[in-house]
Amino acid sequence: MSEGAFIAGDWGTSNLRLFLCDAHGRVLDSATGPGVAGSDGRCAEIFDSLTSGWTATAPAVLCGMVGSNIGWMQAPYAACPATLAEIADRSVSLRDGRIRIVPGLSCRNRFDAPDFMRGEETQVLGVLALEPTLRHGRQLLCLPGTHSKWALLNEGVVLEFLTAPTGELFNLLSHHSVLVRERGEVTPVAFRNGLEQFARFPRARLLDRLFECRSRTLDGELAPGDATAFLSGLLIASDIAGALETLGEVPEVHLIGSPNLTRLYADGLAHQHCRSNATDGSDAVLAGLMQIRTQLSGKR
Amino acid sequence: MSEGAFIAGDWGTSNLRLFLCDAHGRVLDSATGPGVAGSDGRCAEIFDSLTSGWTATAPAVLCGMVGSNIGWMQAPYAACPATLAEIADRSVSLRDGRIRIVPGLSCRNRFDAPDFMRGEETQVLGVLALEPTLRHGRQLLCLPGTHSKWALLNEGVVLEFLTAPTGELFNLLSHHSVLVRERGEVTPVAFRNGLEQFARFPRARLLDRLFECRSRTLDGELAPGDATAFLSGLLIASDIAGALETLGEVPEVHLIGSPNLTRLYADGLAHQHCRSNATDGSDAVLAGLMQIRTQLSGKR
Repeated sequence: MSEGAFIAGDWGTSNLRLFLCDAHGRVLDSATGPGVAGSDGRCAEIFDSLTSGWTATAPAVLCGMVGSNIGWMQAPYAACPATLAEIADRSVSLRDGRIRIVPGLSCRNRFDAPDFMRGEETQVLGVLALEPTLRHGRQLLCLPGTHSKWALLNEGVVLEFLTAPTGELFNLLSHHSVLVRERGEVTPVAFRNGLEQFARFPRARLLDRLFECRSRTLDGELAPGDATAFLSGLLIASDIAGALETLGEVPEVHLIGSPNLTRLYADGLAHQHCRSNATDGSDAVLAGLMQIRTQLSGKR
Repeated sequence: MSEGAFIAGDWGTSNLRLFLCDAHGRVLDSATGPGVAGSDGRCAEIFDSLTSGWTATAPAVLCGMVGSNIGWMQAPYAACPATLAEIADRSVSLRDGRIRIVPGLSCRNRFDAPDFMRGEETQVLGVLALEPTLRHGRQLLCLPGTHSKWALLNEGVVLEFLTAPTGELFNLLSHHSVLVRERGEVTPVAFRNGLEQFARFPRARLLDRLFECRSRTLDGELAPGDATAFLSGLLIASDIAGALETLGEVPEVHLIGSPNLTRLYADGLAHQHCRSNATDGSDAVLAGLMQIRTQLSGKR
């Protein structure tokens, strides 16, 4: 086994994933641990315990909620517009620089509201490394999830972004709402039914369409188990429409996330006449941490 | 005490309220009991036990979920457009007609989706009795709640309606979402802040504004306890905007509901340049049940 040269860590609210990489960024070993919410202020101990068998001198770069006020050490947000170099520069240093924590990004969004991301900025940087064409021109990136992030880039600089709590709304409504009486799988047919019903009245308000998850099952148009997928279609279509209206129409969106979720967004984008490409979120975060590592090394 | 001539019952999912009324509709006595969801199929027993001390021969009219498939006896929905006489005619009869259960209303809404109400139709009929001017011309009525109903009437006929699960979304998001970290009261100032922020970008999608409940507290614009009220403002403003866009602008909306809730909607309507009047939902349901009783008596 080649020697570990670098530890990459994706430490979010719910999960920690650590990777020991060689000098070329190849993963030699990996470990998982509790997210920041379950770390109980013991981030240092957890990190040391999980990496104790690894090269003791390997420097680490960590991103995600580990840099929040409930994490290991607070890494204040870098303000948009932000370049790779600026994000790397704003990382905070622990243990004489052996550990760096990536800052999140902040912006004032199109609704004159503050907006924040923490962890997604690293995935964005990773995608720019993996897909060099995205470094040029105006690009719209979408990171779907509990809180979906839509990032607008120009020449590789993150200009601004927008957050939509689409996944959180989906989870709350499909688990706890009377709108979905019988939770089912997100099957393609019922999901597309939601996309298509949305598209018939694209300017309608989401609040005026959600009751359909229930009413269409009550009158037999929708099988009870299909309300979950129909809801997913309505929400994702609304998320996409909002982002394209707000940040501007584009011919193509680059998706970053789990294949299950990016497939749904790709389908939703196609329904709104927008092409898409996708990168797995795990690949993106690793590539992003490597980019930051390289940027920091180059400065020394 | 004058003799009980009529029992009026509002039997919803969560609560049962029974009223013994005299021939003029004055309440002589009342009782409360479990909603349909807690009745466990024992509606007849519950009704008999609560009314055992009342005039045995008094006929009863019951509205709400008592007429659903989890209630006492199913009263199939009457289709819009629906008049008072049609709603009364479609009531189902129990115990040789001594007990009548009011049907709910169904319609095909503006989004070509099925829509339903059960209980609110009786409040609408009650308001038409209490506010005779509403029997003329085109009128928009709003019954805010867990599932807000907006009913469009012409010459006293319910033409169509629209459901928005505004209250349910508020409850889910304020109790279970990371968007609202510290649940607080719906204070007027923070509520109006939500209305005003909505009004700055009235065409924005709700999904693109919800994260502000969190981001504005993160950056200190909003006190943590004010996120609840801010959320309420955003949701109610979106509910109102959707209804006015869908069912048509009106100079005035008539609100039916609890004073706490109708006050918030009145405030929201005023922000969208719409006047409003309000009737207490309890008064409306009692007047509606009396209307149906009178209609049924007149037919005999």
